Amino acid sequence: MSFSSKHIEDLINEFAKLPGVGRKTATRYALYILKQSDKETESFASALINMKRELKHCSICHNISDKELCNICANHNRDRTSLCIVEDIRDVMAIESTQQYRGVYHVLGGIISPLDGIGPADLNIESLVKRMEGGEIKEVIMALSTTMEGDTTNFYIYRRLKEFNLIVTTIARGIAIGDELEYADEITLGRSITNRIPYENATSTK
Amino acid sequence: MSFSSKHIEDLINEFAKLPGVGRKTATRYALYILKQSDKETESFASALINMKRELKHCSICHNISDKELCNICANHNRDRTSLCIVEDIRDVMAIESTQQYRGVYHVLGGIISPLDGIGPADLNIESLVKRMEGGEIKEVIMALSTTMEGDTTNFYIYRRLKEFNLIVTTIARGIAIGDELEYADEITLGRSITNRIPYENATSTK
Repeated sequence: MSFSSKHIEDLINEFAKLPGVGRKTATRYALYILKQSDKETESFASALINMKRELKHCSICHNISDKELCNICANHNRDRTSLCIVEDIRDVMAIESTQQYRGVYHVLGGIISPLDGIGPADLNIESLVKRMEGGEIKEVIMALSTTMEGDTTNFYIYRRLKEFNLIVTTIARGIAIGDELEYADEITLGRSITNRIPYENATSTK
Repeated sequence: MSFSSKHIEDLINEFAKLPGVGRKTATRYALYILKQSDKETESFASALINMKRELKHCSICHNISDKELCNICANHNRDRTSLCIVEDIRDVMAIESTQQYRGVYHVLGGIISPLDGIGPADLNIESLVKRMEGGEIKEVIMALSTTMEGDTTNFYIYRRLKEFNLIVTTIARGIAIGDELEYADEITLGRSITNRIPYENATSTK
């Protein structure tokens, strides 16, 4: 299906670059834009440009921010002795939305993945080590994905942070709340048995 | 889940306006844009603006076009005695991609839908009647959707075109090729029996 206009084709091609968007969905989006008012489309285009031009990364934790420091690092009510290491900004937002964590973050910007050519030097690891030198941080929580790359990154960071006097923890893995045991994979179920916790702690959902 | 940046929130809100896009998908798109190079984002933004600024509608059939006349109306090899009436430009593209139709089109820009406040005056019906006055068109093919609104529009156009000496046809409705009869709805199956066609015609897929 091809359109008799270069301009609409261009826009479809741009939409089709978005993750999970095929030509059919991209066409649907382009036709929606076609029906928008000029003003609406201009506001879309300037939102794109503005985000690229104005968006900064927090100089401490590398989270996205409009200012030099992100909202979390700038917030004096956050617990600066606890640091949570995450892969990208989406993870920050996911943890923030649970409202269970009051510490600060460090965004790596990826994980070590030799197959994709991503080594430790490509990630925000040096700045992480530098943050430790301040001595304020007492606990480091590793919240990377449980893939081979995640485990490699965990191990690399663990070794780099060994010289500091830190409690290093990792987020609990186990059966998701509401999930049935029979459908859980063996590794998750196995880990959730090995790392079982006292009943009193488990029932607290605070 | 909310981000600590107004700029990314703005872009997420823009993406979330697209049809079928919720906040989660919009966030995914915005984070993809975040990882794009500045140049790629600029090309996306200018594709948006260009389409709105440069895109024209064909002065004959109202199809989208970069010029005064669309590719189809400007093509001298098309059969100008046959005219296919469709709801919007997507239908033109869908029929074009079958490569079974060599005539020209007329894009209504919608269908009569009193509930949505769309009456005959909001559609490209006057220009359709004007095209008939030329006398070149011998056959009109109605290719609107088989909803109540489509039927109403068909009937309205049929009455408006009555004064001209035209063959008025409608595209065949029936069981889709490859579909199983037991899963077809009764109305479609009923129509496909009522409007059955000679076997020799049916097997030709040319």
